[in-house]
This record gives sequence, C-alpha cells and structure tokens, in this order.
Amino acid sequence: MPRVFVPQRVGVGDVLTIAGDDGHHYTRVLRARESEPIAVAAAGVSYLGKVVTSDAKVGEMVVKIESRMDSHEPMLQVTVVQGLAKGDKIEEIVEKCTESGASRFIIFPSVRTVVRLGDAKIESRLLRWNKVAREAAAQSQRDVVPSVAYAKDRSGLRNHLSEAKRVLLLDESETTMGIRQALKEIQDDATCNSIAIVIGPEGGFADEEREWFHDNLGAVSVTLGPRILRTENAGLMALSAALYEYHDLGG
Amino acid sequence: MPRVFVPQRVGVGDVLTIAGDDGHHYTRVLRARESEPIAVAAAGVSYLGKVVTSDAKVGEMVVKIESRMDSHEPMLQVTVVQGLAKGDKIEEIVEKCTESGASRFIIFPSVRTVVRLGDAKIESRLLRWNKVAREAAAQSQRDVVPSVAYAKDRSGLRNHLSEAKRVLLLDESETTMGIRQALKEIQDDATCNSIAIVIGPEGGFADEEREWFHDNLGAVSVTLGPRILRTENAGLMALSAALYEYHDLGG
Repeated sequence: MPRVFVPQRVGVGDVLTIAGDDGHHYTRVLRARESEPIAVAAAGVSYLGKVVTSDAKVGEMVVKIESRMDSHEPMLQVTVVQGLAKGDKIEEIVEKCTESGASRFIIFPSVRTVVRLGDAKIESRLLRWNKVAREAAAQSQRDVVPSVAYAKDRSGLRNHLSEAKRVLLLDESETTMGIRQALKEIQDDATCNSIAIVIGPEGGFADEEREWFHDNLGAVSVTLGPRILRTENAGLMALSAALYEYHDLGG
Repeated sequence: MPRVFVPQRVGVGDVLTIAGDDGHHYTRVLRARESEPIAVAAAGVSYLGKVVTSDAKVGEMVVKIESRMDSHEPMLQVTVVQGLAKGDKIEEIVEKCTESGASRFIIFPSVRTVVRLGDAKIESRLLRWNKVAREAAAQSQRDVVPSVAYAKDRSGLRNHLSEAKRVLLLDESETTMGIRQALKEIQDDATCNSIAIVIGPEGGFADEEREWFHDNLGAVSVTLGPRILRTENAGLMALSAALYEYHDLGG
C-alpha cells in the first residue's frame, strides 16, 4: 500500500488534497486510482485512507481518512550522529537506519573525514539525504520521516544534541565498556527515552575529538565487540542493539 | 594490519610459506615488506606474525608466528539462510553479516525468488560470494572465514541445516512471537550455541514454504517489529539482536 506523509494533524472522516511533488508522485508515478487504499501518516500518526479522486493531469489527489492504524514507531528515540563518510555511504546509512527505526540523523565533518563539503554542496546533499529518508520511511511504513541535519562545526553539534539525554560513542579503542552495559545503565533511568549514537568516519575518531565528545556532551565510549565494523555498518548494529534492549525490535 | 587465513593449525615459532593467490596478493598487491607485522588466522585461531621474507617476483611470502591473539569470534554460531535476491544483494548481505559475526551462509532459491540461476552461474556466484566473505573476514579481523553454500532444493536445505538446533524464520506475517522472546527461550537451553536465521527474498515467503520450514526444520516464525525491512537489512538486524542477546556484541 502506498504511504503519504502530511505535516498537519487529521481525524477520521477528514478529506485531504495531496498536491505539489507528492500529488505528482502519487497520481502520475504511482498512478493512484479512485477507491484504492492509501496509508496517510499525519503529524506522526498513521491512518488508513481511500483515494476519492486522482487527477494525473493536474497532479492532485483527494484522500478520505477512514480509520486509525497502530503505531509503527519505537518508544526509544535514537539519534544517529554520523561522521561524514565517502561516496554514497551517508545515503546508505540514512536509508537503512530509517527503515530500522532511527528517529533523526545529524551528519558532521569529523577530524578524519576525507570529503569536505562547501555550503552549496551541503544544501544539495541535505535535500538528497532527506529525500532518501522520506522514501525509506514510506517503504518501511514509518509514521514519521526522520530528519537529516548537518552540523557544520562543534557548536552546531552541541545545539543539535542539547536534548539527547545520553550519548554513546562507538569507539574502536574502547575495550572495557560494552554497549550492553551502557544501555542497561541508561535503561535504569526510566525518564530516558532518547539517546544519541555517535559513529566516526572511515578512519575513526581523533583523540582530541573523542575527548571533546566526552567532555562536552557527556558521551560514553562503548565497544560493539572485537570485530572491526565499517562505518556504514556500525551505526545500524548499535541501533539494532538499542532498539532490541528497549523492546522496540520484536517484543 | 593485513590478515591472512591458512587452513592448518600452527604454533608460536612456526614458519609458514604463503604462496598461490594469497602469496600474490600479499607480496604484489599489499606489498608486504620484511619484518612487518601480519595477522595469521590458522584453523580458526589468530596469531600475530612477522614477515620474514617477501618475494614479489615469485609471489611468495614467509611468515613467522610470534604470539597468539585473543579470539574475535562470537560464542553463538549464527547461520544466515538467505532467499536468493536480485542484483548484488547477496554480496552485500555476505559482506555485512560476515563483518558482524555470522558463522556461515546458505543461499536458497525461494518460491518468490525472481532470479533463477543455472548450475554454471551458481558455481561462479559461489566463487564470488566466498571471495567476498574472505575479504570481509580479513577486513573485520575475524578468526574464521564464514563459508557460503547454495542449497539448490529443499533436500539440500535440510542437509545443510541438519546441525542447526534452532531455526528462526523472519516472518512479516507474524505479529505475536517477537525475536526477543524466541531468543530468550533458546537461551534457556544452555546446550544450544548454534542457531539459523531464515530470511525470505524481496517478496517474502509463500505460505506453503513457510509451512515447510515449520514442519521440516522446526522453524519458529518471529517478528522484528512493525516496520517493514528490506531483505538485505532484515538478516543483519536479526543477527545483531541474536549476538547482543548472547553477549557477543560488546559485553
């Protein structure tokens, strides 16, 4: 079933017009037809709807909201804080972690990041990454589209992470504190429903950078075990572990 | 540090000659030099070694075994049983799950598999998949290279899985039994250190196929939660969950 995201709250019985890019996409690309079912995720809540009219010429579709659906969202909010990596890796990470249940992404240029992006390039990448998140959210039937932001510098990082209560740093040089122990300790704090997981780029963290995360964001270095994980794999495994620990991955 | 896999058992003080494809790779591609350190994984045990001589012309390298290294292997053996999927997806799955700690792979043509491979094609794919596993095992510093096999039909599947004590089937239509509950029940059996995880191709399982796994392999259908996961992502998340539950993912 196709899925459309709208920003506003809706209720059962409401009738919505989908125009613009989404209108184009659903009427022309997906060729939605009258009386077909469609899922509508409205301000984080999912509904089952029905296509009332679909006008491919104008690129507009009218949808009636019929019933509320169960939530597909995890209770634990996980922010993936990913060091900028080469090639299409960020796209891959955004796609896979969106499917898997991440709630937002902060991309940052790490000390060992090889790629350097100018402002124009950052803008175009952000558009692309947010589009990938939207498509992955639709495909995996999320109720919300995770946002992707870029933190140009450390004060940006600090602002973006001011609400993350606990920050875990995936650290190849950490041998003692396993992610399991760290997650169990976080879980003892019943008020904590939001964590951030920081992943370095291909070359890992510089010492000074690791210390900055410890000192400024209260980050705790954790290990995922003795096997060396690529940057595009490490975040996904840590996210799986966190959701699993919080009963958000199959009970 | 580069890592070479040899089939035989070795001991500290032994001197080995690395020839053939590996000799070529280490002397010519990686340009190993005298007295450089090298990791040697010998019959599942890792050692720190030193290059004694490296002859790029002949494509041979002599290595001395200096000390034993800690194991990088999980206690839980996880067999990834993956329905044949399109394009390069199997390569991606073998690469990522090898890094993450899978112990072997069985690829099978599922009822809903779109690709059909003839015998010659299967042979060439198996060579490729096993090469990917070897490279990923070296990169992630595994002690063993997971094997990749192809089960052409159901009697092949049954043979390959005769030793897997517990089989979990990732099942989109399952809503009650979460993977967490299933793993906890398996863990109650202290003698069980080997499980298999079955993942369908893009279209999921056919009803009859799901029943065959239940009836013939004692497979239990489990859910990874309400979000729809792509086939190339589902196995990795389930593997992460299983290793986490068994203290094989960071404590």
